[in-house]
Amino acid sequence: MKPYVIGLDLGGTNSVFGIVDSRGEIKATTSIKTQGYATVEQYVDASVEALGLIIEQVGGIEKIKAMGIGAPNGNYYKGTIEYAVNLSWGRDGVVPLADMFRERLGIPVALTNDANAAAIGEMTYGVARGMRNFIMITLGTGVGSGIVINGRLVYGSDGFAGELGHTRIGRKDGRICGCGRYDCLECYCSATGVARTAREFLNTSQEPSLLRDLNPADITSLDVSLAAAKGDALAKRVYEFTGELLGEACADFAAFSSPEAFVFFGGLTKAGSLLMEPIKESYNRNVLRIYKDKALFLVSGLDGASAAVLGASAIGWDIVTPIV
Amino acid sequence: MKPYVIGLDLGGTNSVFGIVDSRGEIKATTSIKTQGYATVEQYVDASVEALGLIIEQVGGIEKIKAMGIGAPNGNYYKGTIEYAVNLSWGRDGVVPLADMFRERLGIPVALTNDANAAAIGEMTYGVARGMRNFIMITLGTGVGSGIVINGRLVYGSDGFAGELGHTRIGRKDGRICGCGRYDCLECYCSATGVARTAREFLNTSQEPSLLRDLNPADITSLDVSLAAAKGDALAKRVYEFTGELLGEACADFAAFSSPEAFVFFGGLTKAGSLLMEPIKESYNRNVLRIYKDKALFLVSGLDGASAAVLGASAIGWDIVTPIV
Repeated sequence: MKPYVIGLDLGGTNSVFGIVDSRGEIKATTSIKTQGYATVEQYVDASVEALGLIIEQVGGIEKIKAMGIGAPNGNYYKGTIEYAVNLSWGRDGVVPLADMFRERLGIPVALTNDANAAAIGEMTYGVARGMRNFIMITLGTGVGSGIVINGRLVYGSDGFAGELGHTRIGRKDGRICGCGRYDCLECYCSATGVARTAREFLNTSQEPSLLRDLNPADITSLDVSLAAAKGDALAKRVYEFTGELLGEACADFAAFSSPEAFVFFGGLTKAGSLLMEPIKESYNRNVLRIYKDKALFLVSGLDGASAAVLGASAIGWDIVTPIV
Repeated sequence: MKPYVIGLDLGGTNSVFGIVDSRGEIKATTSIKTQGYATVEQYVDASVEALGLIIEQVGGIEKIKAMGIGAPNGNYYKGTIEYAVNLSWGRDGVVPLADMFRERLGIPVALTNDANAAAIGEMTYGVARGMRNFIMITLGTGVGSGIVINGRLVYGSDGFAGELGHTRIGRKDGRICGCGRYDCLECYCSATGVARTAREFLNTSQEPSLLRDLNPADITSLDVSLAAAKGDALAKRVYEFTGELLGEACADFAAFSSPEAFVFFGGLTKAGSLLMEPIKESYNRNVLRIYKDKALFLVSGLDGASAAVLGASAIGWDIVTPIV
């Protein structure tokens, strides 16, 4: 029995590696910078070197079943990272990263995008254990999603399913999205969207607010959340507005896969009930009657710092199970 | 080997039965009125009596593997029809119709809603043969959908997944939907929605149109389609508007399951390229770049008159395969 998998949370700044057991305990961890390399080969060299040390700590590569990678623009079917604008060595093409690690480490390697990894992590170790139908929504710099139907992650015909942050909301405010289109959910319900809403609310009213003490350009979603926690009415309305839109969006998602739960993860969830209550209220007001009061609204049970590594590692168990 | 399945297309007016072989050939057919019965027991009695004759024609019940039913508000998991407002004997509660037929006929019986049945029919006998990821959209009196992911129909946590006709469009015209909410896709892109759009276009302009010869209240989607086929500019714009909205909706659906095809079925598809071209153009203009030019837009390959029965029968194969 090989008791461990490697998880790699490949972010725009850091690449964090963890060696994880089947209960989700991280046995060893290390990290490198993601960007300091001219080529992907150099990135993989540095990764393998860093990994070598922690692999020895747990008893060597023969203790390790597989590796899972969560990465931006990850394609599960091909094991590739495709045109990832935030990666210096992955921006202009298709990088076969899973194959590269497989060759170097001699173990099976699977790769998917970060939000899908988070969904599998939640299903393997978190609040979605035992659930066969749920939707994971990650509220970070952007809005990501991972959809689980019949106990399996939905990859679609091309490996790119589950981009719910890029469904369009009903409002037509004309916010431009990073994807080049207008009024995607992500423009409103990400950390950057929340900061943008706060700036708009400040601009369009004279209402007093703790946020007026800050330079508007510097306002972050954390500032808004701190102000709301102190009772700032304008800041609270920013979260009500954000939750309203998320609830409307989830009402449409219910009409797709009727999940038993929506699981939220990421920085914005730190606002707690300031965000979650408006989501639930808006959902129940907007959803088709047959779905009403059925879905749970949950916040990730995984520790924020290690959740991404756990999620990535869970993909490792996922591939190994059918193969071995 | 039992070579046949029974399909029942249970509609608001007629209940059509067919005995179907594995290639989708209908060997015998019969029908009864759906509504002329005070209780569901009487409806099942009449059904079994009518079925008796055609079952004998194909060599008796021992030639029949299973029965599939496509019905409004059908719940696949429970085999029930739930609060179907258009059925006199099914309006006020939960009718265990699959169990009732199973007891009377002594064969496995499965039941789902009409659009799901159409999707399975298309996958079994139609243009979606061999596809593992597609979305069926039925454009009839309402807008229904059946979603196939990884080769399986999506039923969700409660058996009611796939109500894409009740996702909300971006416009806020305030059309009220049969479901009690506003601006569902169905209010615009069903046969009744098309007629409504035509009346609105006639009301809000002085533009000459063949449709002005008709009593506005009597205008149907067929009238609009006939006028458009004769070159009527206003009628054409009705289809362009309808296709535009369907294309926008499909762009959002792609972000969910990234299907290899959208398959359209129902009365509105008779408008052909008048409707399909605007759908495709709008889709490619609205969809996230990674999905662009990937999905096919297809019209059902099944003969309209028998498609619903074939779809229902296909559910029969579907349940038998795992059980036997």
